[in-house]
Amino acid sequence: MRKTSSLALICLLAAGLSDRAFGDEGMWLFNNPPLKQLKEKYNFEPTPQWLEHLQKSSIRFNSGGSGSFISANGLCITNHHVGLDTLQKISTEKNNYVRDGFYAKSQKEEPKATDLELNVLMSMEDVTDRVKAAVKPEMSADDANKARGNAIAEIEKESREKTGLRSDVITLYQGAQYQLYRYKRYDDVRLVFAPEEQIAFYGGDPDNFEYPRYDLDICIFRAYENGQPAKIEHYLKWNTKGPADGELTFVSGNPGRTDRQLAVSELAELRDQEVPSLLNMFYRRETYLHAWSARSFENKRRAEQQTRSVENNRKRYDGYLAGLLDPDIWRAIEERQKKLTGTSEAPALFDKIKQAQEATAKVLPVYEYFEQFRGRPEARYQAPRAFNSTLFQFARRVLRHGDEMTKPNGERFPEFRDSYKDSLELEVLSSHPVYDDFEIVKLTDSLTDMTTRFGSDDPLVKQVLAGKSPVDRATELVNGTKLKDAAFRKQLYLGGASAVSAAKDPMIELARMVDGPARDARKVYEAQDEIKQQAYAGLAKARFAAEGTNSYPDATFTLRLSYGTVRGYEQGGKQIPALTITSGLYQRGADHKNQPPFDIPKRWLDRESKLNPNTAFNFVSDADIIGGNSGSPVVNKAGEFVGIIFDGNIQSLVLDCIFSDKQARAVSVDSAAITEALQKVYDAQPLVNELLSAKNGG
Amino acid sequence: MRKTSSLALICLLAAGLSDRAFGDEGMWLFNNPPLKQLKEKYNFEPTPQWLEHLQKSSIRFNSGGSGSFISANGLCITNHHVGLDTLQKISTEKNNYVRDGFYAKSQKEEPKATDLELNVLMSMEDVTDRVKAAVKPEMSADDANKARGNAIAEIEKESREKTGLRSDVITLYQGAQYQLYRYKRYDDVRLVFAPEEQIAFYGGDPDNFEYPRYDLDICIFRAYENGQPAKIEHYLKWNTKGPADGELTFVSGNPGRTDRQLAVSELAELRDQEVPSLLNMFYRRETYLHAWSARSFENKRRAEQQTRSVENNRKRYDGYLAGLLDPDIWRAIEERQKKLTGTSEAPALFDKIKQAQEATAKVLPVYEYFEQFRGRPEARYQAPRAFNSTLFQFARRVLRHGDEMTKPNGERFPEFRDSYKDSLELEVLSSHPVYDDFEIVKLTDSLTDMTTRFGSDDPLVKQVLAGKSPVDRATELVNGTKLKDAAFRKQLYLGGASAVSAAKDPMIELARMVDGPARDARKVYEAQDEIKQQAYAGLAKARFAAEGTNSYPDATFTLRLSYGTVRGYEQGGKQIPALTITSGLYQRGADHKNQPPFDIPKRWLDRESKLNPNTAFNFVSDADIIGGNSGSPVVNKAGEFVGIIFDGNIQSLVLDCIFSDKQARAVSVDSAAITEALQKVYDAQPLVNELLSAKNGG
Repeated sequence: MRKTSSLALICLLAAGLSDRAFGDEGMWLFNNPPLKQLKEKYNFEPTPQWLEHLQKSSIRFNSGGSGSFISANGLCITNHHVGLDTLQKISTEKNNYVRDGFYAKSQKEEPKATDLELNVLMSMEDVTDRVKAAVKPEMSADDANKARGNAIAEIEKESREKTGLRSDVITLYQGAQYQLYRYKRYDDVRLVFAPEEQIAFYGGDPDNFEYPRYDLDICIFRAYENGQPAKIEHYLKWNTKGPADGELTFVSGNPGRTDRQLAVSELAELRDQEVPSLLNMFYRRETYLHAWSARSFENKRRAEQQTRSVENNRKRYDGYLAGLLDPDIWRAIEERQKKLTGTSEAPALFDKIKQAQEATAKVLPVYEYFEQFRGRPEARYQAPRAFNSTLFQFARRVLRHGDEMTKPNGERFPEFRDSYKDSLELEVLSSHPVYDDFEIVKLTDSLTDMTTRFGSDDPLVKQVLAGKSPVDRATELVNGTKLKDAAFRKQLYLGGASAVSAAKDPMIELARMVDGPARDARKVYEAQDEIKQQAYAGLAKARFAAEGTNSYPDATFTLRLSYGTVRGYEQGGKQIPALTITSGLYQRGADHKNQPPFDIPKRWLDRESKLNPNTAFNFVSDADIIGGNSGSPVVNKAGEFVGIIFDGNIQSLVLDCIFSDKQARAVSVDSAAITEALQKVYDAQPLVNELLSAKNGG
Repeated sequence: MRKTSSLALICLLAAGLSDRAFGDEGMWLFNNPPLKQLKEKYNFEPTPQWLEHLQKSSIRFNSGGSGSFISANGLCITNHHVGLDTLQKISTEKNNYVRDGFYAKSQKEEPKATDLELNVLMSMEDVTDRVKAAVKPEMSADDANKARGNAIAEIEKESREKTGLRSDVITLYQGAQYQLYRYKRYDDVRLVFAPEEQIAFYGGDPDNFEYPRYDLDICIFRAYENGQPAKIEHYLKWNTKGPADGELTFVSGNPGRTDRQLAVSELAELRDQEVPSLLNMFYRRETYLHAWSARSFENKRRAEQQTRSVENNRKRYDGYLAGLLDPDIWRAIEERQKKLTGTSEAPALFDKIKQAQEATAKVLPVYEYFEQFRGRPEARYQAPRAFNSTLFQFARRVLRHGDEMTKPNGERFPEFRDSYKDSLELEVLSSHPVYDDFEIVKLTDSLTDMTTRFGSDDPLVKQVLAGKSPVDRATELVNGTKLKDAAFRKQLYLGGASAVSAAKDPMIELARMVDGPARDARKVYEAQDEIKQQAYAGLAKARFAAEGTNSYPDATFTLRLSYGTVRGYEQGGKQIPALTITSGLYQRGADHKNQPPFDIPKRWLDRESKLNPNTAFNFVSDADIIGGNSGSPVVNKAGEFVGIIFDGNIQSLVLDCIFSDKQARAVSVDSAAITEALQKVYDAQPLVNELLSAKNGG
């Protein structure tokens, strides 16, 4: 599942193994769309209205994915695995929405998400000149970083005050461009429909990132405003038939992050250090999550969302690493850089980046361990290594909020700037349940991991453990903190630094112990990052000069337009068809004796005879997508919803490590399967009626 | 399951948290048994005949466990998880002995193990003086190590030539004593009975190292000589009732390794480096084994034994690490050492050990990666990190055999000395199947792991990968080698170094690439180890002087006698009874809706009404056992077989990290459960008759 970026695929695309064979390459800005390419290759000319409609029908799910509006009354669709975070948070031992699915027969029955925020991109504005003007050539890296932060904070604040919209300044082309993105926020989001996890994630981890597939990976929510279903102007018209093989389609979503312009020296660090280190973390987490989950059904339920996320990331980074270790790919990466170094400034700029890496190396272990942003937007959706505990994350947020709020807006960490206030509050004051037993398991592992990484005799480790074993310390902290109580968090949040100090909450005190070293490391890291950013901006300029500006920037979890043809591929001498059909699902279940994760839900077994065996279920296209695109609508030339992205097929990477551009595919659920399942499996005709209602002619 | 040493438990026992509260402490030599303790505490005086009978009825399974003879016609019993290696090797997709179990109704139907060797300890002889005389004080560490090796090889060779028995010189008390152990070997071993894995390993990984339990963890083989069932003089009388709560019992088996005399500085290295590094390896292996196994039933079958082994080791070392990170335990370890440092020589000796550690540090990464003996006998039963591939292991054996055989016997690596010739041949010429797909998966992971550990630019890594990606290189090697063919291996084995070179087999050439660096590191390691060994011998002398010689040496996977009382324990305020009964099995299945790993096999469900619900199933005693003791017979004062060790309960460690000596328990299958299952579930009355036959009065 492609919730966060599948860097493997990216890397391969980036490698340009076959140069321009990716006719359908690109994650384009809506204000710089691939008009030329579409015209030349497909003789298609989207109008400004067509683009605006698709842009404003598209949604960013801040839990880490994409989606789209599909009715005038606020209905929106995303992947089940994007909705999973919410499904997990609103479930209980008795009402297990993840396992059992859910359908609200009336609006009154739609349960509210605890902390889900949707963003709709309303406008984009170039603010490069204003941001760049703040940074003077004579400034030190540290001062430059501060000045840039101040300028950005000011622009965001101004915009928010003026428009009331969430206002984010986005860095594009690694710093060559800055744009002000304004989002309409929805934070009252309610669950309308979810299938059983068994069919949403049919085939489980073995089938993840593989094809052919048979997954109904969808989840339908409804956005509310002022307690009423939101009135939506731009939403996608529902197409009940899905796309045809060979049809041109478009994907509008928020790819997480790509490294297509990264220096070879940075990719080498990724390959030799960062990815292996991330993988070690995922291996250990997956192991203990599986072991703990196997002990009881309720354990499994409590850990489900984290287990899925860890499995997914492990498979993703395994694939990425396999790609980076492929000599053909590596050669292509080196050649890409060589092309640029023909320009006069480039070699010096690449050297600057390398020097900044070296200057960062010393703080990197602490930075990665206690901060772990490292420029990866998707990292926001993963607990950092220290510490994997919801309560600790609350503690850190509350502590830092108190400390940061004493500073001027522009000098705060970006995540505490005024423009993100609403989003921060949604997160910190969330009412979702926290389970002590699971918290202790996670925190014990985190403390153990920290001890083995830095050594038992490390002063910070000693301070953190406070003379106790990891499990004793974790137990003491989880049992001792009051942060499970949202009212308590609110009190500290509103009370600020002094209230936070006075509370003497043990988890907050733990957060305080690591905060100093984490801040110190972040400071060094960000100063060097500023140097890198300036160098990359210079390289981007050189690139523009050489290749023109008809290009797309690396992905940044902001809205992009991709396009591609629905088409199969060859693998191991066999032709994999573009579309799978319903009968294939039942065949796959039978092939695996209906054993998990290939077991077909009872409801689907019962209704088999009602279903058309030839209905398209999933399909692949060659659109250029990555993680973060999960839940992105797939639309046809008429702008109609014909499917929803949920994965990419990187099995060729993981298992074969021979990647052909002919094989890279985006995997979607077909709108035909969705329509039929709602009608014939889930008895959700009213929901289908809403999708097909006259209003939806829009 | 306690196939190889559960160091956690050991460490705790060693810690002496409650000093002499372990009334039943000790893994005693059969030639220095705890007569005083047994007399004082239990008023029991075993006769020399009693001891000899138990010793010669006991078996070492060279696949890594223990067992015992139980009939005059060669029947021997061990754990299912000890027999698993053989069950796996003789199974095919159609005949899945692991999953389905097996019962040979006649001797003709007993399938032969591919490479299983049983050892029965026939005699022990002190050779300390002769070994020590070879080492002169003026020798360098390197020379001393060689001289010692030569002396040992000579003693072993002489003994083997004289007696025809396998002759091993065993290092005891870390080098204070050397004994010549002579073993009768059995290498024609055939399968008689195995239950389904589902009941043998009931509760799976979640229940492993936990209690209460309901596992029929047994496997029955028959030793053959000259094509006929071996005639056995010493075998245990079968007791159909099992032990009573509170009864004194004895355990005779081969505990793998303990670290009770290890210096604090060595334990710190274990805690901060060795165990975390081992765990990282197990985490990654467990992850990819699970992922690969989930793809198909046949994958799962092929990987089963390795998966079980990895899961077991991961849980074991997790527990050990938790123990080492417990400050109470660490303090106890430090105090134990302080007691010794009261003697005049001790501080200098501990310093020597520390210096040897420091001198080893530089070669340790390569040594651990490419050699990985590091004094842990159980490591022999795990593939070293580089490389986890059966074919590679064959390659390395064949290559080294060729090279080592050109040297005089005493100068070879111990595993290639003449005295181990038979065992080596059994291993190298084994006919067990090797699966290309599984080999590629394992080797790809190993190569990837090596690359991330040493870096893509490391010269050895580059040489090993030969310009290919890990998966391409693994595929090329597995497809290119002829080592799957036992006849080819035999040819190279007999042909020696020149035949091995001439073969130009790619897997052997890979083994050759890493052999130089591995040998270099081993040389440094062993020279420093010699220094350590001399220091430990000095410390042992000091210990004898202070505490007398009525003590037991650290475990070395050689035969030991333990004793203990059948008794329950308190946990979380609840009294855990010593014995579980059959009805508890069915209850546990129902509690978990009969879902894996708590599903009860069909045969057991069908026969439930025939079984006595009150039959004892498993029991715990406070006998001092560790891994390697798996399969050890538990006997009563009359020397009768009343049960079989299969696990220890270290859940208190992993989950609570508060260890009480009152909680440490050895877990056994009750002979009553075995008898009833054979009769009523498996219709194996003839087998029961053989166990109970008149001949078995012996």
